[in-house]
Amino acid sequence: MSIFIKNALLDNGRMCNILIEGDRISSVTAIDGEESSLVNADGTSLDVVTVIDAKGMRAISPFVNMHTHAGMTLFRGLSEDMPLERWLADIWEGERYLDRESIYWGTKLALLEMIKSGTATFADMYWEPDVVAKAVVESGIRGAISYCFLDGGDKEKAARQRDECVQMYESLKGCSPLVSFVVSIHAHYTVCDENMLWAADFARKNGLKLHTHLSETRKENTDHFEKYGISPTRRLYEMGILGNDLIAAHSLWLDDNDIELYGRCGVTAVHNINSNLKLSSGYRFRYNELRDAGANVTIGTDGCGSSNSLDMLEAMKFAALMQKAWREDPSAMPVNQIYQIATVNGSKALGIDNGRIAPGAKGDVLLIDTRSTRFIPDYDFMANLIYSANSSCVDTMICNGRVVMQGGKVEGEEQILAKASEHIEKFVKKIKKR
Amino acid sequence: MSIFIKNALLDNGRMCNILIEGDRISSVTAIDGEESSLVNADGTSLDVVTVIDAKGMRAISPFVNMHTHAGMTLFRGLSEDMPLERWLADIWEGERYLDRESIYWGTKLALLEMIKSGTATFADMYWEPDVVAKAVVESGIRGAISYCFLDGGDKEKAARQRDECVQMYESLKGCSPLVSFVVSIHAHYTVCDENMLWAADFARKNGLKLHTHLSETRKENTDHFEKYGISPTRRLYEMGILGNDLIAAHSLWLDDNDIELYGRCGVTAVHNINSNLKLSSGYRFRYNELRDAGANVTIGTDGCGSSNSLDMLEAMKFAALMQKAWREDPSAMPVNQIYQIATVNGSKALGIDNGRIAPGAKGDVLLIDTRSTRFIPDYDFMANLIYSANSSCVDTMICNGRVVMQGGKVEGEEQILAKASEHIEKFVKKIKKR
Repeated sequence: MSIFIKNALLDNGRMCNILIEGDRISSVTAIDGEESSLVNADGTSLDVVTVIDAKGMRAISPFVNMHTHAGMTLFRGLSEDMPLERWLADIWEGERYLDRESIYWGTKLALLEMIKSGTATFADMYWEPDVVAKAVVESGIRGAISYCFLDGGDKEKAARQRDECVQMYESLKGCSPLVSFVVSIHAHYTVCDENMLWAADFARKNGLKLHTHLSETRKENTDHFEKYGISPTRRLYEMGILGNDLIAAHSLWLDDNDIELYGRCGVTAVHNINSNLKLSSGYRFRYNELRDAGANVTIGTDGCGSSNSLDMLEAMKFAALMQKAWREDPSAMPVNQIYQIATVNGSKALGIDNGRIAPGAKGDVLLIDTRSTRFIPDYDFMANLIYSANSSCVDTMICNGRVVMQGGKVEGEEQILAKASEHIEKFVKKIKKR
Repeated sequence: MSIFIKNALLDNGRMCNILIEGDRISSVTAIDGEESSLVNADGTSLDVVTVIDAKGMRAISPFVNMHTHAGMTLFRGLSEDMPLERWLADIWEGERYLDRESIYWGTKLALLEMIKSGTATFADMYWEPDVVAKAVVESGIRGAISYCFLDGGDKEKAARQRDECVQMYESLKGCSPLVSFVVSIHAHYTVCDENMLWAADFARKNGLKLHTHLSETRKENTDHFEKYGISPTRRLYEMGILGNDLIAAHSLWLDDNDIELYGRCGVTAVHNINSNLKLSSGYRFRYNELRDAGANVTIGTDGCGSSNSLDMLEAMKFAALMQKAWREDPSAMPVNQIYQIATVNGSKALGIDNGRIAPGAKGDVLLIDTRSTRFIPDYDFMANLIYSANSSCVDTMICNGRVVMQGGKVEGEEQILAKASEHIEKFVKKIKKR
């Protein structure tokens, strides 16, 4: 199957035709001023299945959401404007009602929302990874799906989780080019040392990425200092867990030494600004320092339980504006950097060869409809996209050489919405009855 | 002309029919479970011109954007990620190319954007108020349009502006129920004392509101303290300018005494969070203190030169999340309060009898389409609206008894977009040539 996108305006300001064959972009041809054609250089017709006219649109790379709990769309709006303890209690109570079907429908809803807001790749951390994988494959976008360790120090549970992780890895191995298997360590304070070490070892032996929560709150750090006399980052470093395969969600309360370790080991830090603001975790994410130290800074939305949507454009705007504010520097985190953070840095973390519209790259393209007030005047497309527009400008998504959304429509979305609503309504009733 | 909205779900969870006659809501009838009908209590048919079926939608009050410079959409994206001095220089340079036609098209664009994102009333501060008024009347939404004093201490200019203000007031008086005339004092540091006093006196003699920038930056306050030994708020108070007719944009760097004065005088503070963040002006807006002191807290988007869009839903989310973050309290500025800030508090400031879906109120209704992932699950509609959705959920707007947008479409929007683009392209070229 091949896809021919004609009249697409690229970031460099040139009008191009983009040809995608199989799962890769095979050619990008500047056509400035010329008519688009479906003819090869030798004059023969191109054998193209899908033709998309991108007139009035910009072609960019889709976003990479580096930290979410997709299934937690089930808890969107469950416990709002509550102190942290009450919020946590509400979410945990809600999670008692989770089953595989709920996670499936919660994830389906999340995937639809990600597609509609321009995310073609995401790193997930939740339960029942085989269920999540099923939903991902059906959606057509790419998921770094994890088996998540959380043992609370219970040795039996820890051993059982190791077995489960191996089984899950074996059963999902090679299931789809859209699915990659990741090993999640929920957090250093919820997983015993033995399992943290085992998880890191298992991941490295099998060439898998590691995903964890790290230094999300001030209290997490203070507690750790009291117990161990060092920062959580330092301890993970000493345990050999820090590495360029580690995806460290939040990374908010890092001191200079932690940042040096992130840089030295090439850790991927995931900034989840909306969640950090909404839960009052903090807002002084040390982007400049992490970038300058050589860490790989990416961005995520976190789950809908804490940050209510999976909208990467919104996350990008929040991140950029918050950097400018707390650093007292309007030039902090400029648009070209935030776009890189939200695309290529994520691809780098996950080892995916995308994040650019160029021959040889994965067949991932997002078409942005610029025919609205938000893109007028046109001094600066990227500034309009990130500071002015919202996700309703996302018109078409191609992921891995397949059209996932066109003209703002995802195939079967009404059915997904209806079935997910129906299931979630039952789920909500169970929670409300409690 | 009358409008009958059937099957509208109100904020109280009841399904209702809403009848709007003339410029007022005349009845709101609960129809829980029943069929909608167009029959009067006495069995006769209602004489209705427009029937809107709100099935699948929520009916709420439209938003009130309490501080913007609508015409500044012309500068959206002009000078991004720049230090403040460079940004200001770029905007001022851009403003050299302003003429009445540019302001007209910039304002037309702004009005379209406001309608599409749910704002039916706005307080403007820009040049050529008669041009702005023309665009407002054409749009069908409500504008508090101001003549803006900015004399830079030039006595001749100051005198000329007083004459112009009087002329403008006389020429716009009674021009449309959608237009109210406001007197703007650009700021205490750009307008001479004589004109500030004259403006306040003129406004009060004619029952007009006053609009000014106040304590936007730390430097503004520091400079003022150096020059006068007191805060700008204290000086305006001593000059008799503070009052419940004063709309004070930004109000960001207020100390406890300033806040007491705001409360005592019933000043309207306008929080412009996106602009404050993006220009690095600050983020510790003292909402709780202002509210508790008795000030009237409202919200604005500021102009697109600094904050890039006129989207009140986005401003509400930024404001609420930022309060939670800097106060380290996730319960700060909860959704019911932010919605009130963005609606009834604005109406109160401008003396407009709207902000509720109830008989007797102005005929202002916003229909929110909840048929998307952002509104599933439905634990909490307001949280979904403010924390999860974006303005693409705004389906229909009725302002002052007239349908301004229906099914996401504004009459003639393609033409507005095309003509505004055409004009703005010329404007942009002039600026870029400089």
